[in-house]
Amino acid sequence: MRDVAVIGIGMTQFGELWGKSIKDIFVEAASKAIKNAGVDHIDSMYVGSMSSGLFVGQEHLGAVLADYLGQNPIPATRVESACASGGAAFRAAYFEVASGASDIVLAGGVEKMTDGADVTDALATAADQEYEVYQGVTFPGLYAMIANAHMNQYGTTREQLAAIAVKNHRNGANNPNAQFRNPVTLEQVMNSTLVADPLRLLDCSPVSDGGAAVILCSMDIAKKFTATIIKIKGTSQASDTIALHSRKSLTTLNSVVTAAQKAYKMAGVTPNDINFAEVHDCFTIAEAVVYEDLGFCEKGCGGPAAEEGRTAIDGKTPLNTSGGLKSKGHPVGATGIAQIIELYEQLTGQAGKRQVKNAHIGLAQNMGGSGASCVINILEAL
Amino acid sequence: MRDVAVIGIGMTQFGELWGKSIKDIFVEAASKAIKNAGVDHIDSMYVGSMSSGLFVGQEHLGAVLADYLGQNPIPATRVESACASGGAAFRAAYFEVASGASDIVLAGGVEKMTDGADVTDALATAADQEYEVYQGVTFPGLYAMIANAHMNQYGTTREQLAAIAVKNHRNGANNPNAQFRNPVTLEQVMNSTLVADPLRLLDCSPVSDGGAAVILCSMDIAKKFTATIIKIKGTSQASDTIALHSRKSLTTLNSVVTAAQKAYKMAGVTPNDINFAEVHDCFTIAEAVVYEDLGFCEKGCGGPAAEEGRTAIDGKTPLNTSGGLKSKGHPVGATGIAQIIELYEQLTGQAGKRQVKNAHIGLAQNMGGSGASCVINILEAL
Repeated sequence: MRDVAVIGIGMTQFGELWGKSIKDIFVEAASKAIKNAGVDHIDSMYVGSMSSGLFVGQEHLGAVLADYLGQNPIPATRVESACASGGAAFRAAYFEVASGASDIVLAGGVEKMTDGADVTDALATAADQEYEVYQGVTFPGLYAMIANAHMNQYGTTREQLAAIAVKNHRNGANNPNAQFRNPVTLEQVMNSTLVADPLRLLDCSPVSDGGAAVILCSMDIAKKFTATIIKIKGTSQASDTIALHSRKSLTTLNSVVTAAQKAYKMAGVTPNDINFAEVHDCFTIAEAVVYEDLGFCEKGCGGPAAEEGRTAIDGKTPLNTSGGLKSKGHPVGATGIAQIIELYEQLTGQAGKRQVKNAHIGLAQNMGGSGASCVINILEAL
Repeated sequence: MRDVAVIGIGMTQFGELWGKSIKDIFVEAASKAIKNAGVDHIDSMYVGSMSSGLFVGQEHLGAVLADYLGQNPIPATRVESACASGGAAFRAAYFEVASGASDIVLAGGVEKMTDGADVTDALATAADQEYEVYQGVTFPGLYAMIANAHMNQYGTTREQLAAIAVKNHRNGANNPNAQFRNPVTLEQVMNSTLVADPLRLLDCSPVSDGGAAVILCSMDIAKKFTATIIKIKGTSQASDTIALHSRKSLTTLNSVVTAAQKAYKMAGVTPNDINFAEVHDCFTIAEAVVYEDLGFCEKGCGGPAAEEGRTAIDGKTPLNTSGGLKSKGHPVGATGIAQIIELYEQLTGQAGKRQVKNAHIGLAQNMGGSGASCVINILEAL
């Protein structure tokens, strides 16, 4: 298997992009990535998108976007794993380069969520339609159940969850592409509108439009384009039961545990070697649980870690320096690729006021549904 | 790049499967494939599905189906390229095995189209929503434009198109999994209801439910499981403009021409070496155009070839021995995998009354939209 590197990145502003179509958004992100990489062509492309059919009435998105990007006749394929679609597209591109079939491949992600669809209903198609959604539960409700169980089992507090939102908004304030660049206080989170007890509005990632793209290539080509090689050191993916009710525990995400073990093994590292991570904080409780399941600490410490500053930019393991899904925004198909972009910016020292000191190895964890899919990628600056 | 083989196949009956959900259908096909291959595990799985969101309100299909197949925690990803979703899923599985990352991977496809959705509207999301569909054109109309242009440019006749439907129904009558096992006459096709001039009802593939799955593995593992190795000799994919109006010609599908050139090159063969092919006859005209664009003859001969029997089972290049999309049925996400299954059955001499003599090398051509995506796979019996 050939080594693979990331050599270029591009993304749009995340937010409510009323003036731009899904095509405009993707073409902007992909064009930036191609220009940033400095390549004169791409061999193929993958696009992560959760539900362009339900959101904007357009399937066949790979072909549509290749056309509007002016890239015919290259192969163009959409990859979908709900909110982990971006991570899954990245892995598809990785395999194509690693196999030797292609040298330079674009992995992108895009979602246009604000254009009229019933967003909560569309997102709920990532849960078990038959046994969860038809009974009336949507994702805020599912993650609220996880939060209640975590509070009950480990004593996680409402304040600790709020501390995660406060941290991510603080980070996002320094990210020019973030949807929300306003810091929030603990009191604001605690007093925001109740969505699904105990989760409040400021525990929830927003509805967003946005696109992101990266260029992957073989290691020998990467060396021609850049001095600082960002190598894909580990990549993994795992699944879990689609419905929460089928799981033995609500407080451990098995797909995260399994994918982490595989990614660490492939990369030859332990959690202690990870200098920073982007994780899938669709709700504050998700960041707490994922932090634990990635092995950064024992079960139950996710809440205290945020409260005590261990996950802050100057903490032991900075989490979501980009602002995370909470502050940066969560155009679902683009999120997994945007995580890779934050890793790239940190590893190449381009993260500005968000820069983590001594950032050599970063991890991105992207999740679908209530954890039925998990994709993990570990990148290293050589 | 490692050599990859297909070692097991499984599919459901294609048709109106009122008693089965999308989960039931996929699990049946995938279970058959796993049993047929004789493997005790799979490392990961890809599922081709065009629009499970619009058809049955369920996205995140990879994770859903891995769960119901009892395969957690393996990676499970949905791949979408409209009606070429099955072919694209097959390629994704191919890259994962070829790279060395996994040894045994399932590639499947499924669609449940008869459960209440407005099927024509849902299928139309594979065309350019903004510039084609919003103006009132759907796929029968798009292919009718291609048919009219082909008739005008090459003198293709109504009778020649009908001959394609007659041949495919004749073949499908011998396929136990086909949706329509009734032969039809030239007169029946010519007198069937007009859908979009010149295309009539019996020129159009039907609305279908169905699932299909195959098991891919590395060559060294394949040798442990079977004496007759079915090797993936060539694989390719190409894109074209999403909208017909952007093309220089309506009568040549550039994605087919490009993908064919790449697949032949990778396989080290010419069209003359292909003993038989499954092609994407979503409408009769599509089979005629694809036959030409695959290089089996000069442009314009697609109609006469069917009329003169050159594409019959005992002809020079048998096409759609399975019955094709026309007679076997077209559950869109499953079609690309079902084509691979027909290749496998022919190459291993299991095609019964449909058996092609001296079937050593077969080609499968799977297409999305009006040819904006094309996937070609060439398989060989070693």
